[in-house]
Amino acid sequence: MPNYTKKKLHRYSQNKIEEVNDVIAREFPLTIFINKREIVTLVCSPKSLRELAVGFLVSEGLIKKFEDISSMEVQEREGLISINLASSPFTLDSFLRRNIASCCGKGRASLYFINDARQVEGVFSTHLFEGNKLSLFMEEMETKAEGFRLTGGIHCSALGGDKIIYMSEDIGRHNAVDKVIGYSLISELTLDDKILLLSGRISSEIVIKATRAGIPLIISRSAPTDLAIDLAEDLNITIIGFARDGRFNVYSHPERII
Amino acid sequence: MPNYTKKKLHRYSQNKIEEVNDVIAREFPLTIFINKREIVTLVCSPKSLRELAVGFLVSEGLIKKFEDISSMEVQEREGLISINLASSPFTLDSFLRRNIASCCGKGRASLYFINDARQVEGVFSTHLFEGNKLSLFMEEMETKAEGFRLTGGIHCSALGGDKIIYMSEDIGRHNAVDKVIGYSLISELTLDDKILLLSGRISSEIVIKATRAGIPLIISRSAPTDLAIDLAEDLNITIIGFARDGRFNVYSHPERII
Repeated sequence: MPNYTKKKLHRYSQNKIEEVNDVIAREFPLTIFINKREIVTLVCSPKSLRELAVGFLVSEGLIKKFEDISSMEVQEREGLISINLASSPFTLDSFLRRNIASCCGKGRASLYFINDARQVEGVFSTHLFEGNKLSLFMEEMETKAEGFRLTGGIHCSALGGDKIIYMSEDIGRHNAVDKVIGYSLISELTLDDKILLLSGRISSEIVIKATRAGIPLIISRSAPTDLAIDLAEDLNITIIGFARDGRFNVYSHPERII
Repeated sequence: MPNYTKKKLHRYSQNKIEEVNDVIAREFPLTIFINKREIVTLVCSPKSLRELAVGFLVSEGLIKKFEDISSMEVQEREGLISINLASSPFTLDSFLRRNIASCCGKGRASLYFINDARQVEGVFSTHLFEGNKLSLFMEEMETKAEGFRLTGGIHCSALGGDKIIYMSEDIGRHNAVDKVIGYSLISELTLDDKILLLSGRISSEIVIKATRAGIPLIISRSAPTDLAIDLAEDLNITIIGFARDGRFNVYSHPERII
């Protein structure tokens, strides 16, 4: 399903009003069931639902590799994904409890940092990254971000290696990242030498996602938060922000950049 | 508490590296208790916690007016707010159940639209708004948005009437709006002739918030989603997007703009 649709609207400029059709970002509800239990409804852009569901499970610590999923059924039109896990993770109940206090901006914070960050081991990677290449990756992602260009309302994220390997777009910053992580898992890629690119803010939750996936470097054209930087320092992740026009800021573990 | 802090970072540009101090947006966990039950942890910017908590309760349909709160205790340093409601709302249990499937980008969607949108009545307002003034409000808000200017990573929202009445900033788009709604309730303002301004995307959840508060017009410099437009059409809310440089697009109920 496409990430956008067309709608009629009235455009006002200098006291002139015209009726036009314009491209609008779609907002699509996707409900995920694990072992027949409803666990979450994500509001997302409707492309790459399979990648989103898998990435979400990794990010939440419910699976570690694609093989942990024994079957997956996608009902695209209805917005339903049913996943069966080879073994029911002991974390599922605590996930359901924890998410009573959940959202982005309605985040997990206190529970989250007590449970999650301490359960997560840091990323082990000795890979070095070339500064010049990082800037080029950001430019490439932004040039290719069709949804953002068309609607002005879609975040993008990508996986970088020798080149941009995969790219996702979503109205949700978290979803865009989960789609990249989901793709990486489905494709069984090695991640300790890869880069997670995103257009939006680097919050603590994005750092947890990268850590769970094992990606040592996060780069964005936007800003990181203080908590994201502190976590990245602890979890051995390099955070780069404000990557624009060949410049960027490194907020943690600069030793990886050459 | 301030919304930002300072951190040391490495700035790369044209193969030059310098160590600098820069302003960084803070990410602060705020846990809300109602009648001694923990109901949510919001990840937010640490200013205006009281407004945030009150606005959150309105947005979630747990209270309708400030008087519904019999007492409120804020422990700012610990990030805790304890609220006692005059009467326990019958919606509290369903709120807790519903939020098992909750987040922004991890939104409520299916449950949300079944429960929420149908429980919410549309906004009744016959007030007319001047197009020229709307553009000036947006410019004023953006000029005053200190946090965004300093850190590049903070959303802003405001309440407009004859002038900008109140302004909030937060790392979370939803929180910024909740702070404005919370302030309006605490100040017992009439809202059927007011404007909700925000810097970020207008998603369906923002439309529900405005409807619950009774604000007939939402204006943003960013894009709305298709679902937000459809809901706004039903709930009698005017949505304006891409308000920049004296131009804007009206997506629903244009009859209010003169």
